[in-house]
Amino acid sequence: MTQLNETHDPASRSWVDSANQPDSDFPIQNLPFAVFRRKGSQESWRGGVAIGEQIVDLALAARHPGVFEGMALEAARAGSQATLNALMALGPAAWSALRLALSRALRASARAAQRAALETTLIAQAQAEYTVPARIGDYTDFYTSLYHATNIGKQFRPDNPLMPNFKWLPVGYHGRASSIGVSGQPVQRPVGQQRPLAEGQPPVFGPCQRLDYELELGVYIGPGNAQGQPIPLGQAESHVFGLCLLNDWSARDIQAWEYQPLGPFLSKNFATTVSPWIVTLEALAPYRALLARPAGDPQPLPYLDSTEQRTRGALDIQLELTLQTEKMRTAGQAPARVALSNYRHAYWTVAQMVAHHTVGGCNLQPGDFLGTGTLSGPTLDQACALIETTGGGKTPFRLPDGQTRSFLEDGDTVIIRGWCQKAGAARIGFGQCRGTILPARVTG
Amino acid sequence: MTQLNETHDPASRSWVDSANQPDSDFPIQNLPFAVFRRKGSQESWRGGVAIGEQIVDLALAARHPGVFEGMALEAARAGSQATLNALMALGPAAWSALRLALSRALRASARAAQRAALETTLIAQAQAEYTVPARIGDYTDFYTSLYHATNIGKQFRPDNPLMPNFKWLPVGYHGRASSIGVSGQPVQRPVGQQRPLAEGQPPVFGPCQRLDYELELGVYIGPGNAQGQPIPLGQAESHVFGLCLLNDWSARDIQAWEYQPLGPFLSKNFATTVSPWIVTLEALAPYRALLARPAGDPQPLPYLDSTEQRTRGALDIQLELTLQTEKMRTAGQAPARVALSNYRHAYWTVAQMVAHHTVGGCNLQPGDFLGTGTLSGPTLDQACALIETTGGGKTPFRLPDGQTRSFLEDGDTVIIRGWCQKAGAARIGFGQCRGTILPARVTG
Repeated sequence: MTQLNETHDPASRSWVDSANQPDSDFPIQNLPFAVFRRKGSQESWRGGVAIGEQIVDLALAARHPGVFEGMALEAARAGSQATLNALMALGPAAWSALRLALSRALRASARAAQRAALETTLIAQAQAEYTVPARIGDYTDFYTSLYHATNIGKQFRPDNPLMPNFKWLPVGYHGRASSIGVSGQPVQRPVGQQRPLAEGQPPVFGPCQRLDYELELGVYIGPGNAQGQPIPLGQAESHVFGLCLLNDWSARDIQAWEYQPLGPFLSKNFATTVSPWIVTLEALAPYRALLARPAGDPQPLPYLDSTEQRTRGALDIQLELTLQTEKMRTAGQAPARVALSNYRHAYWTVAQMVAHHTVGGCNLQPGDFLGTGTLSGPTLDQACALIETTGGGKTPFRLPDGQTRSFLEDGDTVIIRGWCQKAGAARIGFGQCRGTILPARVTG
Repeated sequence: MTQLNETHDPASRSWVDSANQPDSDFPIQNLPFAVFRRKGSQESWRGGVAIGEQIVDLALAARHPGVFEGMALEAARAGSQATLNALMALGPAAWSALRLALSRALRASARAAQRAALETTLIAQAQAEYTVPARIGDYTDFYTSLYHATNIGKQFRPDNPLMPNFKWLPVGYHGRASSIGVSGQPVQRPVGQQRPLAEGQPPVFGPCQRLDYELELGVYIGPGNAQGQPIPLGQAESHVFGLCLLNDWSARDIQAWEYQPLGPFLSKNFATTVSPWIVTLEALAPYRALLARPAGDPQPLPYLDSTEQRTRGALDIQLELTLQTEKMRTAGQAPARVALSNYRHAYWTVAQMVAHHTVGGCNLQPGDFLGTGTLSGPTLDQACALIETTGGGKTPFRLPDGQTRSFLEDGDTVIIRGWCQKAGAARIGFGQCRGTILPARVTG
């Protein structure tokens, strides 16, 4: 616990000045991971850790004598590769050792030799580009917001919005790993089949007319489990490497036509965007929160229930989605906020997702990726998909310059941000996850 | 076309005697690929090609001077690795060159030096063990049998068995890659949530009581496509490395409770079994068949329609499922046939699955894996899942020794076989895909 307290001390300051700004996403208490290289270069991708506006190059730091030793050195070497899978596989003791060593070397009171060594490994984030930080073997998307499930359920199934299973298990389904890209990825409007205009007619075929975002958080799995060996709830968090921002782009018209009976497919697999930075559960520890369940809701089954999860299983992470149209960009207008939600509204926790995923024997592997599902809160300004904000397109959203949006148009940029903030704790930020809609390809 | 005719000549015989037996799955006209090593050894996994009861070790053959040259040598080297992904990525010209070189070196009229060289690379299949032959990045399961969709739809949705989208697009969804194992993998009965016994009750939690198989074919993708660049129907087959047998184990009670609204999840991801051997489209060429659509069914949209697919898009592959209970095994009784179906009953072809999968911009990668869905034919003895055979468990299946099965019991072994056979063509077999049910883990 000495180690934990040491890295959580909100008064701790870094010799990297930009990390001490009160609005910095990346103070010394955060230390999130990404995979990066110098922008526009052909350098090897390698792991890095954010500190203020800088990145500690783990590949350089691991080779520098005197920066790391023991388990921290092993972790830094594993983090030097082009994906973080090896670091993820090492587990919490190694992650903690690396975090503590970095915290000690980056704080204002660090020994001069250590500071001098680490200074040579820094690269400015402004000069870096990023890639998806893991080789994602399997991607699973959950559906953990009661508000999202109810809002969207009303539109797809007005008479039956919330399925009876929702309050008993974290509903999830398998997603597409190959089309996951990092913040900045161009998102080409998909083309596909949509519902016939009238019964007996052929389906409509063409560019999606109801293109949407979904604001989610993503979860990277650390050590996996063997097939047939579930991860108990109490151990689930030791299998979680960290969290990032996630945009689960969705083609609502393609989805409505294709999704029965086996679930969404082409409506989701054309693109999924993640933020480059992965924030660890250790950094998020001061923001653990009560898991608030509406009174009268059922107690989860034993494999999904614990005092620990009930009292501090939720995470108080603020989530913001802003939109900048091409016209706004041209006019120099800042992106406009469309939603401000919070991860504490989720009905199921990260640990519950992991325990449920494996209870039947499914094996998770290091680098596997879970989405939380759209994290809408109880009110309309907390709705994290346009289909909810605009009531299925019926009530367009009005932007500050008078433009309106039912769904996304070509040239729209969607920016997701996330951060934790409260008195007596350091701010922990996630950076951003952005994507711009490109026109559909020309079809013959 | 000379090359094709040469490898398709049904009269061609091999100097490997076992390849010339009329009931051999692996005559010289087949030459399927697997990844293998000597049983019980710690040898490296490497690619091999079946010939009769032998395997050509591609890693040995590629190093042997004079066996391969040019593009065939490049393909053999790519096929020498622990996964076939590199070979899959090379594309049809390389696969054909390797196939032709192997065919020439293995035929009875081969040059003595070449035969002598290849003889030193052979290992008996009886002495080999296999692994999943590709690093499968993403697994997609389709739902292409009209009969299966109707049979199972009747049970889940009696008033609405066949969704209106079925005849317009190959319905598909994402599956779990991590739990795919090779023939022989132990299949532990999954534990999970099932429907409450009465409204207002909590769900039942425990071992699956309605454990089922699904007889399918699997498809390995060769060269992939870039995100946003669909594969046109006319080019789709050049992206297909080959086909195998597939058992999509399914927990029907878990499925019925969890699957709305996002599709099957834990009911499928505990285990999926593939056969070790991958049969190429070139080997299957003599068994191309008319794609039979019921009269009055709609013409597919242009991106899913071509004369080529209509006239020879189907494949005449016979599919058999047999079951051997523990009692039968102990009594020395042979497995009993439960289903005999044919892939030509599928409503959508392999090429149509590939074209549809990518039409919205989704990228496929070498080694990605598609399932055809359960390949039930029109009659009950062609039903390829127990839930169909037994009418949801209501009409148990009677085995020759008087035992009955509504669903699978512990100790049951399920064996899938596939083969093509007709006058004037060599038999092309798939080997087998088997799995035995182990008891559920003990839950606290």
